[in-house]
Amino acid sequence: VTKKTERYELFYWPGLPGRGEFVRLVLEEAGADYTDVARMPKSKGGGVQRVLEAIEGKLGGVVPFAPPILRVGSLVMWQTANICDFLGRRHGLAGADEGEHRTSLALMMTIMDLAAEAHDTHHPVSTALYYEEQREEAKRRSTAFLDQRMPKFLGSFERVVAKNQAGKGRALVGAHLTYPDLALFQVLEGLAYAFPKGYGAVKPEIPHLLALRKAIRSRPRIRAYLASKRRQDFNETGIFRRYPELDGA
Amino acid sequence: VTKKTERYELFYWPGLPGRGEFVRLVLEEAGADYTDVARMPKSKGGGVQRVLEAIEGKLGGVVPFAPPILRVGSLVMWQTANICDFLGRRHGLAGADEGEHRTSLALMMTIMDLAAEAHDTHHPVSTALYYEEQREEAKRRSTAFLDQRMPKFLGSFERVVAKNQAGKGRALVGAHLTYPDLALFQVLEGLAYAFPKGYGAVKPEIPHLLALRKAIRSRPRIRAYLASKRRQDFNETGIFRRYPELDGA
Repeated sequence: VTKKTERYELFYWPGLPGRGEFVRLVLEEAGADYTDVARMPKSKGGGVQRVLEAIEGKLGGVVPFAPPILRVGSLVMWQTANICDFLGRRHGLAGADEGEHRTSLALMMTIMDLAAEAHDTHHPVSTALYYEEQREEAKRRSTAFLDQRMPKFLGSFERVVAKNQAGKGRALVGAHLTYPDLALFQVLEGLAYAFPKGYGAVKPEIPHLLALRKAIRSRPRIRAYLASKRRQDFNETGIFRRYPELDGA
Repeated sequence: VTKKTERYELFYWPGLPGRGEFVRLVLEEAGADYTDVARMPKSKGGGVQRVLEAIEGKLGGVVPFAPPILRVGSLVMWQTANICDFLGRRHGLAGADEGEHRTSLALMMTIMDLAAEAHDTHHPVSTALYYEEQREEAKRRSTAFLDQRMPKFLGSFERVVAKNQAGKGRALVGAHLTYPDLALFQVLEGLAYAFPKGYGAVKPEIPHLLALRKAIRSRPRIRAYLASKRRQDFNETGIFRRYPELDGA
């Protein structure tokens, strides 16, 4: 059994927001005590080496498949949606009852599916190849993503927020903030970065998501986090990459 | 609050095992009372129309993004790993404590990632296009899948089972069966169906997974299920499709 006051350790690749960012946003909104291990200096036990050790199973327990990896007390876990559900439940960010817990997790997993599909626009063949080696396929996949998949996902989330009267048009589940709201904020930030034209074209269809994005951005803890050095910019090594040739015809 | 004795209703496309099968296997192993709604005759309230209604939100609650969808009492939820975690915890198939719950869910999500990548071998560009319209890309993606991704996933699961001494070489988590064991069984069945050559080539590297597959297959409830008409064969409309041209060089 772990205590809420224990320090969390996040193991994730340094140098990009990536999937680690979904975990960071929950930790920041919760005001939790955490270390972003790989971003600490080597002299203080940080560095990318610590992520590699975590993947090798050096933290104990079952060997994790991939980062992000969270350790707290004797618990070690991986998979972004799993970690966020764990943290969300512990810190009052996962809804009020079992129905809201399960809806939060379903939405979180669906948001991560959207993130994975956004990633695959630039890596439709293989993550082991460079983007430049799958440029033609990427162009075709991006077109399908922008024309069909992104509008389908965002349209679904838009309807969920619009129908949630308890959330006053600014929350996915129930009356209060839940961790999928934070994840959706991050995905909207990423889509706006990667596809300024494609995302711009869908904006008129998603007024409630734009309001949600704005509301999250102005929450005191999130606002402070976004202004801090802990927040990392998007770049061309992450999920969301700005390749103009993939941003629509 | 729902009771364990309540009847579960599964909403999933009829005519293919698909992602619904992961839910069915948990329900069958749990000996749960359930209806596979779309496979019931229309005259008894079944048919594909009921799945379409569920996606439109007619079951109440938040509108689900996609099937499988589970309803029990007043709860409605979607996302395969979410449903299996919910059922696994209720029926003693999710490990003994919080650490095992979280490891089970992480493994389940990773197994579903493998299933999604197996699916994308035949649909690397878009699910809105036919396989025949993305044949060239499919060939390239399948090669990467069989050479790199499938061995990476299966190698990781093999090590997890091999290192789990409590599971006697036949279980992913702890001493007893958990829902990711059932999911891994289904994925192994699917890979063996879709890629007889590619899967055959990796078999010497995964002795513990072969033992797990055999052990699951011979559990009394699973054996009875597999022999029943409730079990559906793989075919070329699902996740795992046998296209010989995608099965290695």
